[in-house]
Amino acid sequence: MAGLTGLFVTFEGGEGAGKSTQIRLLAEALRTRDHRVLVTREPGGSPGAEAVRHVILSGAAERYGTRMEALLFAAARNDHVEEVIRPALRSGTVVLCDRFLDSSRVYQGITGNLEPAFIERLQMVAINGVMPDCTLILDLPAAEGLDRARRRAAGPSAEGEPDRFEREEIETHEKRREAFLELAEREPFRCRVVDATQTREAIASQILSIVEPLLPLQKRGRFALPEDTT
Amino acid sequence: MAGLTGLFVTFEGGEGAGKSTQIRLLAEALRTRDHRVLVTREPGGSPGAEAVRHVILSGAAERYGTRMEALLFAAARNDHVEEVIRPALRSGTVVLCDRFLDSSRVYQGITGNLEPAFIERLQMVAINGVMPDCTLILDLPAAEGLDRARRRAAGPSAEGEPDRFEREEIETHEKRREAFLELAEREPFRCRVVDATQTREAIASQILSIVEPLLPLQKRGRFALPEDTT
Repeated sequence: MAGLTGLFVTFEGGEGAGKSTQIRLLAEALRTRDHRVLVTREPGGSPGAEAVRHVILSGAAERYGTRMEALLFAAARNDHVEEVIRPALRSGTVVLCDRFLDSSRVYQGITGNLEPAFIERLQMVAINGVMPDCTLILDLPAAEGLDRARRRAAGPSAEGEPDRFEREEIETHEKRREAFLELAEREPFRCRVVDATQTREAIASQILSIVEPLLPLQKRGRFALPEDTT
Repeated sequence: MAGLTGLFVTFEGGEGAGKSTQIRLLAEALRTRDHRVLVTREPGGSPGAEAVRHVILSGAAERYGTRMEALLFAAARNDHVEEVIRPALRSGTVVLCDRFLDSSRVYQGITGNLEPAFIERLQMVAINGVMPDCTLILDLPAAEGLDRARRRAAGPSAEGEPDRFEREEIETHEKRREAFLELAEREPFRCRVVDATQTREAIASQILSIVEPLLPLQKRGRFALPEDTT
């Protein structure tokens, strides 16, 4: 977008893939390099979006169905974009956002209740031209992600084979995972898949190597030609 | 839209132009002719839409700005379309709706706070393909409309010259009126301007003459060729 001199990076992926850890590590690395960094998240991220998020989480929207919920999420996203993300990008800030439009595409898409064209049009309204420059998809086999999330919730003693309910949950997670990978294939310039089974240091270093060439450079401008040597 | 065998008629125009009276008269005329008729209105018209309308009217959305308000109105409209209007049209009903997308275009457009392209994309999401077959714009000079609304509110004794506040109000109404007339020029097949300074009987008869040729005909189907005479 014209005038948006910052860099917009979104993090996507299932539960337990380590998104928040990696966002924190990347933010630290970028701040060390003197970049202005804003860490934000969806759903929420601005007062208006938080208010709508509250309505959604209260269950008040649920009785009106998937469609109304999707519209309210879009209203929240648009508020987040216009009030927080766009102004930050305009001032040259690197914005790191935990989940963004791809989560909606994947989560709303696999419910099967909404037409893909509707989801897509709705997202275009929600983001109003502010498309991420780079989307990092932290990819993890569903079983492993759930296992991590389970251990995090119950402490290190929660081990053993998954029960029937958990197996169903694994299937849903696997569907989402496949949907994220399909998205990445469709938009290979924007989306990069990162193998989240690696150590967190290896993941962090891979992410930094992806983001570094995209960073806004105060001195040279983001899309400037190599320095004039005449 | 495929499968929508009913007829979707929307009524637009400023305050005091007589929309609700004309909707009632048209509904009566159509019912006399054995058509199934559904009268509905915006904002509202379905439980989900009423809930959102409540949030908007409470002022809770106002502090988040015109944009959030527009998105919530769109969410309400989409709910109204999917829960009420589309099912009625599918079953061959004539749907008469008091205000629809053109009101949003006009009211949100003249605030100047939202980009026209954003308003338009948002409306396309809200209506999700259910465009009115016919839109009747009841056109009245702003001063006369306000005068009627004033007399209705205060009784027949409220007469006299408009004060400064009312003159400002007249200017706003006149802007809206012009915006409706521009819309009508842009979409002459869908929109018909009706002179609302006529008597209510004359208006009703003009409206019926516009709507009659569009009515769904059980016997011949709406778009059938003239009857086979071989």
